[in-house]
Amino acid sequence: MGNCMHGICDRPKNTNVRFSLPAVCLVWQLAMIVLFGVFVRYNEEADTHWVDFKEKNNITSDIENDFYFRYPSFQDVHVMIFVGFGFLMTFLKRYGFSSVGFNFLIAAFGIQWALLMQGWFHSLDYTDGKIKIGIENLINADFCVASCLIAYGAVLGKVSPVQLLVMTLFGITLFAIEEFIILNILHAKDAGGSMVIHTFGAYFGLSISWVLYRPDLDKSKQLNGSVYHSDLFAMIGTLFLWMFWPSFNSAIADHGDGQHRAAINTYLALASTVLTTVAMSSLFEKTGKLDMVHIQNSTLAGGVAVGTAAEFMLSPYGSLIVGFICGVISTLGYIYISPFLEKRLKIQDTCGIHNLHAMPGVIGGIVGAVSAATASEKVYGALGLKNTFDFFGDFEKRVPTVQGGFQAAALGVALLFGVGGGIFVGCILKLPMWGDPADENCFDDECYWEVPEDEESAPLTYTNHMIPNKHADMTETNFVEQR
Amino acid sequence: MGNCMHGICDRPKNTNVRFSLPAVCLVWQLAMIVLFGVFVRYNEEADTHWVDFKEKNNITSDIENDFYFRYPSFQDVHVMIFVGFGFLMTFLKRYGFSSVGFNFLIAAFGIQWALLMQGWFHSLDYTDGKIKIGIENLINADFCVASCLIAYGAVLGKVSPVQLLVMTLFGITLFAIEEFIILNILHAKDAGGSMVIHTFGAYFGLSISWVLYRPDLDKSKQLNGSVYHSDLFAMIGTLFLWMFWPSFNSAIADHGDGQHRAAINTYLALASTVLTTVAMSSLFEKTGKLDMVHIQNSTLAGGVAVGTAAEFMLSPYGSLIVGFICGVISTLGYIYISPFLEKRLKIQDTCGIHNLHAMPGVIGGIVGAVSAATASEKVYGALGLKNTFDFFGDFEKRVPTVQGGFQAAALGVALLFGVGGGIFVGCILKLPMWGDPADENCFDDECYWEVPEDEESAPLTYTNHMIPNKHADMTETNFVEQR
Amino acid sequence: MGNCMHGICDRPKNTNVRFSLPAVCLVWQLAMIVLFGVFVRYNEEADTHWVDFKEKNNITSDIENDFYFRYPSFQDVHVMIFVGFGFLMTFLKRYGFSSVGFNFLIAAFGIQWALLMQGWFHSLDYTDGKIKIGIENLINADFCVASCLIAYGAVLGKVSPVQLLVMTLFGITLFAIEEFIILNILHAKDAGGSMVIHTFGAYFGLSISWVLYRPDLDKSKQLNGSVYHSDLFAMIGTLFLWMFWPSFNSAIADHGDGQHRAAINTYLALASTVLTTVAMSSLFEKTGKLDMVHIQNSTLAGGVAVGTAAEFMLSPYGSLIVGFICGVISTLGYIYISPFLEKRLKIQDTCGIHNLHAMPGVIGGIVGAVSAATASEKVYGALGLKNTFDFFGDFEKRVPTVQGGFQAAALGVALLFGVGGGIFVGCILKLPMWGDPADENCFDDECYWEVPEDEESAPLTYTNHMIPNKHADMTETNFVEQR
Repeated sequence: MGNCMHGICDRPKNTNVRFSLPAVCLVWQLAMIVLFGVFVRYNEEADTHWVDFKEKNNITSDIENDFYFRYPSFQDVHVMIFVGFGFLMTFLKRYGFSSVGFNFLIAAFGIQWALLMQGWFHSLDYTDGKIKIGIENLINADFCVASCLIAYGAVLGKVSPVQLLVMTLFGITLFAIEEFIILNILHAKDAGGSMVIHTFGAYFGLSISWVLYRPDLDKSKQLNGSVYHSDLFAMIGTLFLWMFWPSFNSAIADHGDGQHRAAINTYLALASTVLTTVAMSSLFEKTGKLDMVHIQNSTLAGGVAVGTAAEFMLSPYGSLIVGFICGVISTLGYIYISPFLEKRLKIQDTCGIHNLHAMPGVIGGIVGAVSAATASEKVYGALGLKNTFDFFGDFEKRVPTVQGGFQAAALGVALLFGVGGGIFVGCILKLPMWGDPADENCFDDECYWEVPEDEESAPLTYTNHMIPNKHADMTETNFVEQR
Repeated sequence: MGNCMHGICDRPKNTNVRFSLPAVCLVWQLAMIVLFGVFVRYNEEADTHWVDFKEKNNITSDIENDFYFRYPSFQDVHVMIFVGFGFLMTFLKRYGFSSVGFNFLIAAFGIQWALLMQGWFHSLDYTDGKIKIGIENLINADFCVASCLIAYGAVLGKVSPVQLLVMTLFGITLFAIEEFIILNILHAKDAGGSMVIHTFGAYFGLSISWVLYRPDLDKSKQLNGSVYHSDLFAMIGTLFLWMFWPSFNSAIADHGDGQHRAAINTYLALASTVLTTVAMSSLFEKTGKLDMVHIQNSTLAGGVAVGTAAEFMLSPYGSLIVGFICGVISTLGYIYISPFLEKRLKIQDTCGIHNLHAMPGVIGGIVGAVSAATASEKVYGALGLKNTFDFFGDFEKRVPTVQGGFQAAALGVALLFGVGGGIFVGCILKLPMWGDPADENCFDDECYWEVPEDEESAPLTYTNHMIPNKHADMTETNFVEQR
Repeated sequence: MGNCMHGICDRPKNTNVRFSLPAVCLVWQLAMIVLFGVFVRYNEEADTHWVDFKEKNNITSDIENDFYFRYPSFQDVHVMIFVGFGFLMTFLKRYGFSSVGFNFLIAAFGIQWALLMQGWFHSLDYTDGKIKIGIENLINADFCVASCLIAYGAVLGKVSPVQLLVMTLFGITLFAIEEFIILNILHAKDAGGSMVIHTFGAYFGLSISWVLYRPDLDKSKQLNGSVYHSDLFAMIGTLFLWMFWPSFNSAIADHGDGQHRAAINTYLALASTVLTTVAMSSLFEKTGKLDMVHIQNSTLAGGVAVGTAAEFMLSPYGSLIVGFICGVISTLGYIYISPFLEKRLKIQDTCGIHNLHAMPGVIGGIVGAVSAATASEKVYGALGLKNTFDFFGDFEKRVPTVQGGFQAAALGVALLFGVGGGIFVGCILKLPMWGDPADENCFDDECYWEVPEDEESAPLTYTNHMIPNKHADMTETNFVEQR
């Protein structure tokens, strides 16, 4: 099996990445080692000098190490990145290896590059010129990578692993700059990254997909769909994303009430989204049946949209409202907007990230801006307000209404970087040297993976209950061919 | 594809939930928003005023926020609810979408309703009439939902999503009342919910199943079984339940030694159960082969049974004994009692919750009563005894033997609410308006889901990569027959 | 279905374990209960006397209970043991039940026996002769079991569950002795167990496999491979191992900076390994396609190799280098060394543990020895150095260079116990009484499990590649029969 396929693969486009892929992986990894050697060290909480630091700063217990505040959230985020995103994309019938495998590859590269890029902007120790990393850097690196994995969702099945690595290299770089502008220059808050991660990542991916538009993608449409068990694998991704999203939005929130509140808000928004997603999915199918695509994706929209405001005093019912709206909009997006985007705007969005990340991300940015602008000392308390929005130092005199304006500006920056960066990177990826598949080979693991002979491709209905002895010899032959 | 199915579906019973399901989801979700708006606020540890609270109460470090005591356990419990229960029920060959999907739906609704119901009983701030929620409320909401998911196990494959939502609405309500009586009025202890969650949930589900008895369920017996990969999916559920059960039983236990001890006891009871389950499964099959049903379910019985006493000084060997007994009883339950229940008592229990939750839950209640009654200052220490059983305030003078009596009474309350509530709710669900499937369509995702053409029934190699036209007609024919 | 299979099973070797398996499970579990009754109690942090202990030791907050330092890591390790190892081995097309199920069984037994064995060596309270257990003991028990699960990887598909239990009984015993020698007598450090767990476990398994060499294993070669979905199941195992490995290596590291640093080092080493694994996998396949075997296994090698030195000041770039090297070596191991081992050394290593655990484990031991020997006060700080290497008490005067020597000696001890113990245990397992399968029934769940009739369980070898038109009519008949 796959012999004919293989022949087809090779002809119109060369998907053989035997030299480009190893070359990129090895050279970049070596570059990482050199750069880490020059720049990266442990921060004071991860260094053996912590014992001295503790004494100097009157820290009485080891448990006050940031590790214990953030490590459980970190691990949850880690699961979202590798299992959540990876398995969410396994819904395609013959693209599971690439979904999980390339997700794994680009995340593993991305986190290293992100530690450097974000480190230069945020964790540089000016006394010795070194980046000092600790648990929060690891979380931020995972966050940074999330934006590239979101973008992967738009181009899923249509690009080569080399293209994905190039996309990640640029994506992480753009992310770090955008994040620095938003968090440090504009001093906007974005605990769960509705703007920084989701809006940027989604428009980045959609723009790339627009540049890489394939008019003849229909040639592989028989593979652009799910099978029964691939939908169940995808639910593993969905659920781990859904369950751990409270950790995602609270992972780098302020210690104490900040993390606590972010987790509650996210928990509630997500619960609400599930109900409205189910409602819309059933209402807009002609026989009231549910569509797995919606359940796998739109149920997560509330988590995206509550990201920016997760740390704010959004109130429990505020979170429910955000979730309610996003479930509706995201599901309708799958039903009406995605076909429109593909047909009219020439944006082929394999996973529908426009519905899961782009729209909810923008909503999240708006919710953040509004709730920041309307924040008051009455609700937050004097000190609470300063703590929540970090009105200290240069920003001591900023007031909530002004903060709201900066939050809105931040959303604009995220959009700008996403669209602009995406078009730029898309043009690079369009160069005919990256080993991308031909239109008729999209969504097929065969191009980049040794795919085992398998039960699901065997003509099972014919074969389940045959009289075995009759064909014993045939089997032998087949095995030889197959391996 | 699925056309004939559809015709069949529509005829004897109408499974079209296109209006009822969206209506219930939207209206209930709107009601949640209104009720949360009126009633629910953050508690002092999740509110921006925490900084003031800390100062007032001389709390020196953010890490003493309850969030850090309970959040890791909460996330584990969350995984149990959504992945654990969801995937455990995917063992059926064509009911995976409904198992995971409806589990997702009712849990997402249930946790919101539980926050309100439990909030009114336990977290109402009488100064302002608001429910103040924090991380412990989220855990308790997950716990509360667990009882309804247990009940789902009994009716799996035989009810519509609308029925499940109705069941959950009543189930959560009954749970909150029962829990209030048991924990507050009787002042019984039940850290892991052997009585409150498992006994109640299981008898609630079994009673519903009894009321909804289907004499002709045999018509869909060809779908009431597993296939190879569905059994592996179910093992994902089993293992996440098994692994995180120590977190379940310790999640709301007392800070410090309480949580520590509950985790140890549960870890040990579960380990012991695995061995006796394997032993019984092998011993009672005629060729010594193991049965996946037992491994998927009975291995968990020890966690259920050690729930009430998890926080007590049960001793490591005590936990092993509990696990030992439950592995034996639960496995024998699958072999002998389930068929008996179905044949004689007309209780069709799809997942065998009688063996996994009902019997072990009752055993757990008894173990709890006995170990409470026999608790002594010698073993617990004077202060330890008071702390463990909360002999403070109104209950300052209660002694262990009396506590044992109240624990036994609590078990009775759980049974009563389970059976009584189940019969009541079962009668409601019997009304012919909820869109439940006909007997011949039970255990089939087709009724409520758009099911993809799929590898296991479709001859993919022929359709994907072969010369398709040759067999196009054949395929067609096969599909019609097959569905 | 499976009747013919069954007949074959019974003839050459008797795989009926109906008496031996239940007997071993029940008797050993009873023994555990008795031994736990005699020996095991809660330690002071899990006992109700904790409240007194706190007062006596001026502990001000419950959060300083070791539970809160280690429980999140414990749960991650627990997931690695049961889901990680279990699902990693499901890659075989028809051995998923055994992979997950027997992994579950031997781990559940192993942790109990490990609590006793390690308890006698490490946690014995000499005042009352009791083993006092707490959360750290649970982690160590999981660690101990990991070595036996690694060994299971070598013999996967070729042994009976009874053999596995016997292997585990001896494996745990040997482990506990080896660990005592390495950690206590040699005073070597091995936070992530590169030597203690991986080197020992791998050579233990390889030696057993060598003793149990089956010259005619080719008879079941048609089952010694994967199918599409079994490879995806295996990726669940891979990813949970990969993601939680930082928890594994940091779980029992020193509170504070020790755990923090171990997590960072592991995170980085693993990221690096992914890139070099992909590079090698692509480079050495003739068309540049990736091989799932490498992605599933070699990506984890960096976690193994950074185990010993995880707690040391290895530096971020040091971790990357370790990961880089291991990805290369491990992948090349799968391509070149495994076939050599099988052909020349008669070691049949089903999962390739030589590439994933043995070689990286040895590298880890060497890295540990070198980095210990080169540790300096300049880098570690005076107190930091003492803390990291525990130069207190009897070892107050030990210096880094000497420590390096002892680390190297420890590696030798691990190798010795692995090879020697493996040969010894292999000889025991060779006795013709354990119910192992015949050569033609290896890698087949049928021997020990009731396998559901199903599309995938159909006589695959016969049916995968039939000429469909020939049997079109048969299908008709078959469906009727089958359902």
